[in-house]
Order: sequence, then C-alpha cells, then structure tokens
Amino acid sequence: MSMKVLYITANPKEIKDSVCLSLGEVALNEFKAKHPQVEVTTLDVCANEYAHINGDTLKDYMNPHGLCGLAATDFVSYDYFIVVAPMWNLTVPSALKAFWDTVIIPNITFRYNEQGRTEGLCKGSMLYIGARGGDYSSEFLQDIACDDRMMKGIAGMIGCKYQSYVANGVGGYRQRSVADWVDFAANDVISAVGEM
Amino acid sequence: MSMKVLYITANPKEIKDSVCLSLGEVALNEFKAKHPQVEVTTLDVCANEYAHINGDTLKDYMNPHGLCGLAATDFVSYDYFIVVAPMWNLTVPSALKAFWDTVIIPNITFRYNEQGRTEGLCKGSMLYIGARGGDYSSEFLQDIACDDRMMKGIAGMIGCKYQSYVANGVGGYRQRSVADWVDFAANDVISAVGEM
Repeated sequence: MSMKVLYITANPKEIKDSVCLSLGEVALNEFKAKHPQVEVTTLDVCANEYAHINGDTLKDYMNPHGLCGLAATDFVSYDYFIVVAPMWNLTVPSALKAFWDTVIIPNITFRYNEQGRTEGLCKGSMLYIGARGGDYSSEFLQDIACDDRMMKGIAGMIGCKYQSYVANGVGGYRQRSVADWVDFAANDVISAVGEM
Repeated sequence: MSMKVLYITANPKEIKDSVCLSLGEVALNEFKAKHPQVEVTTLDVCANEYAHINGDTLKDYMNPHGLCGLAATDFVSYDYFIVVAPMWNLTVPSALKAFWDTVIIPNITFRYNEQGRTEGLCKGSMLYIGARGGDYSSEFLQDIACDDRMMKGIAGMIGCKYQSYVANGVGGYRQRSVADWVDFAANDVISAVGEM
C-alpha cells in the first residue's frame, strides 16, 4: 500500500514572502526526495477554508457520515503530516484551528479510554514548521507562545509522533531576508524531516 | 464618560447545556450588580462569525479604515472584557481566534516599541471564563492546555489586566451537572469579577 503525506499550509502570503512557507517547501522537497513513492496531497486552508464549528455542525459532530466525520476519516488515512503556519496572536491562524476543530473527532481521530483520557487513533508522524514575528525563545516568552506547544499537544492527542522547527523573530525587526532564513534553517528542517 | 463592557461568548451550545456560558452569566450578572451604570455590549462570535484572515484582509491589515482597523478601533473603546469559551483541541474555538486575529492590529490594539517588543494600547481589564472537557490541572497537562495561557498572553500583549476562571473536567466523565458547576464555581467567579 502506498504511503500518503498531507502537506497543510495556513498562510495567505506568497511563498517568497513567507519564512514558514519557504521552509515548508524545503521540508516537502526533502520528504519527497527521501520517499519518492509517497503520494502527496496539498491543502492550503487559507484558499480552501474550513468553517467555524457552529450549532449545526455540533449537532452532527459524532455522525461518522457528517461533515466532520468524513473529514476526520480522510485525515486519519494519511501516514505523514507536514503542517506549516505562522504564529498570529500567540497561536496558529484561525483558518488552521478551524481545520483541527473539523478533523479531531472522537472515535475517529482519537477516543476516550475508560479513565476519560484521550488515546490517539491516528498512527502517523507530524512535522510542524512555524514562524513567529517576534523572538519568543526566552524562557518567559516561550511560556506564552502557544503554536508549537499546542501542535505538540494535538499530535500527542491524536497519536502522532511529533517534530517541529519554529523560526523566531522573522517580523519587522528581523535580521534576515526570507532567502537568508532558508539558508540559515534548511539543515535543521532537513534534520527534522529525517526524524519523522 | 460612561464605562463600557464587552461580553464575548464563543460556544454554539445553549447556556443551560454549557458550563462556561453558565459561569459567564454569573460573571456578567455580578459585574452589572457592581457597576449598575455600565453599558453592556454582548457579542456571540458563533452567531456573528468573524472570517479567517485571508489574502485580501492581509493586504488591508494596516489600514485604520479597513475591516480589521475599524473592528480594532471599536474594540479598544471598551473598558472591560469578559470572554467566555470552551477549550476545544487545547485552545479556544476557531470562531474566537478569528475575532482576535481581526481586532489585534498594530498601532491600534498594540504597538511595537523601539526594541521590537509589543506594548498594549488597550488599557482595560479582562476576565476569561473557560471550561475544559478533560481535567488538565496536573502539571503535565497544564503545559499543553493553551486556552488560559494564550488568553493571558493576549491580555498582556494588548495591555489589559487579566483574571481567569477555568473549569476542568466538565466533559463526558464529569462528576457535576451544569447547575452543580454553577454552585461549585460561583464564588470563585464572583471573586475574579471583584479583581477586575
């Protein structure tokens, strides 16, 4: 059976203007070079938006044939996930959060065990590539930067192995162009792909 | 000049079925009792959805008369914020994140200082009322539960004083009904309103 990777991006900018999208390309190219037989599906959640969960979706939430159920069933069919997003206001853009709210569905993506704890049903491997305008690498600011932390938690919850690379300080005061960021970070991104 | 409070809710459930919405009512009633002259505006971001930031919004992002600019200018006119949301997939619902992505705008809600650090321009006080299906109060799980952590970070970023009450373990395995949760938590919620 062929392996499948889902490449999810959540940035409305053009690739050349975006550190995370440019590093995402590095990751995807490396992944394809390592796994030439892999079937690649790309999903830009800014171009193909997922709606906020509303009263109607919530009523149909546990229906395996409903909107969320079908999206979740498709999601768990992948072996690998590469997720690329900027940090906006301390976590991922709403477009990516809406995607998670749609595909993380009980009894498909995870289940509750007898102790009420979550157990992942999605036996894949996830790489998260993020970028933050400010530099949140200090101990105090790491504490409030919730992008990597939340993504790691979600990967754990749904049963995926997790790797990440998050660029700090890519915003207005950045010292590097997007191209320089790619030069600076490419080796780390390639290493992270190797650990997937 | 009269004081204004913005009461923001982000849960498509009915109040009677929701721990956070029920505790939010306790907070709002206490706030109104303490401040009888206050002007109250309610905003249900599940009924009045904010769109994801897309390419068009991003191009117009710094325009004070654009969609985000006008929403941000309205937002900073409030003195108090009471924000009520469940934790879904380790942080707030996408509907609430889309609201933050719309109103947290440079030079209106916050600014960057000469060191590239954020400084809040929104001199208010915020109370966050949250609820989590599972119990995330252990040290390990506190680390991945990003609702309170992100809201505290956002309050700090935009210049608001911050208080919160977050109910843990309100989901499937909960020991208490919604009404029992109100009895259990009302005093803590009322104390938090007193600290605003």
